Amino acid sequence: MIIVPLGVASATPTATRHLPSVALWREGDVHLFDCGENAQMRMLQAGLKRSKIENIFITHFDVDHFSGIIGLLSTLQLQRRDKSLKIIGPKGVKEYVEWNLNFANVDLNFEISFVEVEEGFEEERVVDEDEYYVEARPLNHSTFCIGYRFQEKDKPGKVDAEKAEAMGITEDAQYKALKAGEDVELEDGTIVKSYDIVGHPRPGDSFAYVTDTKYCPNAVKLAMNTNILYHEATFSESLADKAVETGHSTSADAARVANEAQTKLLVIGHFSARYTNPFVLLREARDKFFPAWLATELRPIFTNPSQEKGIVQQKVYIKEANDKSGGGGGKSKKRSRKSDSSKKRFRKRKSSSSDRKKRSRSSSSSSERKRRRPERSRKNDNNDNQGSSRPPKHITPRTPFDNFDRF
Amino acid sequence: MIIVPLGVASATPTATRHLPSVALWREGDVHLFDCGENAQMRMLQAGLKRSKIENIFITHFDVDHFSGIIGLLSTLQLQRRDKSLKIIGPKGVKEYVEWNLNFANVDLNFEISFVEVEEGFEEERVVDEDEYYVEARPLNHSTFCIGYRFQEKDKPGKVDAEKAEAMGITEDAQYKALKAGEDVELEDGTIVKSYDIVGHPRPGDSFAYVTDTKYCPNAVKLAMNTNILYHEATFSESLADKAVETGHSTSADAARVANEAQTKLLVIGHFSARYTNPFVLLREARDKFFPAWLATELRPIFTNPSQEKGIVQQKVYIKEANDKSGGGGGKSKKRSRKSDSSKKRFRKRKSSSSDRKKRSRSSSSSSERKRRRPERSRKNDNNDNQGSSRPPKHITPRTPFDNFDRF
Repeated sequence: MIIVPLGVASATPTATRHLPSVALWREGDVHLFDCGENAQMRMLQAGLKRSKIENIFITHFDVDHFSGIIGLLSTLQLQRRDKSLKIIGPKGVKEYVEWNLNFANVDLNFEISFVEVEEGFEEERVVDEDEYYVEARPLNHSTFCIGYRFQEKDKPGKVDAEKAEAMGITEDAQYKALKAGEDVELEDGTIVKSYDIVGHPRPGDSFAYVTDTKYCPNAVKLAMNTNILYHEATFSESLADKAVETGHSTSADAARVANEAQTKLLVIGHFSARYTNPFVLLREARDKFFPAWLATELRPIFTNPSQEKGIVQQKVYIKEANDKSGGGGGKSKKRSRKSDSSKKRFRKRKSSSSDRKKRSRSSSSSSERKRRRPERSRKNDNNDNQGSSRPPKHITPRTPFDNFDRF
Repeated sequence: MIIVPLGVASATPTATRHLPSVALWREGDVHLFDCGENAQMRMLQAGLKRSKIENIFITHFDVDHFSGIIGLLSTLQLQRRDKSLKIIGPKGVKEYVEWNLNFANVDLNFEISFVEVEEGFEEERVVDEDEYYVEARPLNHSTFCIGYRFQEKDKPGKVDAEKAEAMGITEDAQYKALKAGEDVELEDGTIVKSYDIVGHPRPGDSFAYVTDTKYCPNAVKLAMNTNILYHEATFSESLADKAVETGHSTSADAARVANEAQTKLLVIGHFSARYTNPFVLLREARDKFFPAWLATELRPIFTNPSQEKGIVQQKVYIKEANDKSGGGGGKSKKRSRKSDSSKKRFRKRKSSSSDRKKRSRSSSSSSERKRRRPERSRKNDNNDNQGSSRPPKHITPRTPFDNFDRF
């Protein structure tokens, strides 16, 4: 599973932070937790297909947490979606969506099935699919607010086929029985125990989304042993009073929940607009819990850190590139430029050598191009060695703090 | 007046274009035409104070044109606004706003006065203030849709005080009468004619906002002799059929309206998502009308071009910089670099020389910084000549096409 924060602001957007929304990508499907204004555009920017949305979970009815739904639905309609969609939220979400679609004269092609949770509930499994379920619990905010836990069901243990064959298992039916945990009696009367052949069940991935709440036991219950806990941290410790007053958490509260729930990674989000530098909040959270991380918009977080590591090949590759260019000798200017460019390579795309010539001729126009779309239009400097095989693509680290080495 | 396009997409946002919204800045106040999703954030990014909003004009009830209102109102509420706000739109806008605020339990501190226009009207002055008025006319779209013209009232002509004194005018009351167009009789019986003393009335600025319509005469009437006409150009000429079918304009339609209305500047916006390069649309519009311009998000357009010209000092300044650096001689590498950097200077801010050292030491980290916030974090390269006086600040052109020379 991959978590992509789409907006990490709280009540009001800042110039760089959007209203709350977090996307969960799992096996090609997308599950949206809250849908702040412009979530549809952030999904596009994050490279998440809006057509793949399966469920939208709304925590509560503060404007910032659901104002993007109607726009999103209208876009899905323009995309001619026909797959049904589930919207889960507090009681009233159905009325809201239907009233607004009706007002704007949008007649959806696809079906929306609503799951409404009424105030006063204790715990509810709001979604239950073959491979995962979602559990909801009430949180402690100024209005009725729900926290969610997305839990993959455990996968059965791996079957040791060689051992099974050696023990005389031949038929598919027998394998099935073993997988289901039943022992099998062979024709000669020997009994093959399930646990001899089938390994431990592999635990499913899990993700808890807890936002807009004071510290509360339900948050801990939701987050218990999750791989990722996304917890709001609207304020820093110095504004703890204000946090209690408005029904929000400090980053220390978030760390407390993470500690009690023994989550594997704490991600804090929902920052108050006053924190132009949210690392203040991260420092406080890290004092109490590690690993903790800041939700950075559009920066994906993998529930399985080892996957993330695999995607980026780092230092080794950079070192090789340096070695190659170092072979030239003499032209020290050029060498230093080259070693720079090998570091820069993370954000480069293909280019032709003619492109490169043009660039050196009119560097001002190319710098203008850079200015507009830095990520896209930076071309690969390293085409000197075009004959050699092209290096693998890299994911672009989005901040200097994202060195992918944090686990 | 300054026009700032906040969103130039049509029905659905693209990764770079937001849903429709255009801000008009006049004498410190802001008037919003349409309020697509995330308009509140775009205003922040454009440097327009949301607290300064006086009027919000809604053209029609397609989701993309009004889905940002509730978010904006809720932010105004958080800002503790107490000044009243006017919302103008088709009948139903009041119901929409009130229902949604009520649903989200937002109890506004400030008053909203609604002006609702009913279908079937021909022309209406929806706002009439001391210094300006706004005229509305129906357009021709698939749903009821309104176009607006924002018109400053003419300012009285300038009084030639010297001449007046020479002719014997001494009292304030006499001046007032002359200003009001009345002739004044002096004590000795001579009559001072108003037109001798008071110049021609100075025409007020004007702006027309015409979006979501086929070509229609009302659009021309709204745009007649305006300084700026903001007209939708959803499709190019090759999709004229589709434009008619969906009730939209091609860029040629926009140019036709501009021609017939003799507007001074045509700005096209509301581009279909299929045009990743809207310059296709601009070319077609320019074939038929000049000056035509693309609405570029957050790029301000001045109704009075001479004002805009005054803000940016151009070529002269670049030439000077080149001359200075050229004096060095010998180090040809460095010289060429310098003349490059002087071209780049338009997007640079202050920096310290220590900054510059750091940068040359670790160019990869600085390039990472660049990657994230290209406009902001590019530092001034030209600190070699730090002793000399700092050059004046420049406004950043947002695209290479924005050379500020277009008038």
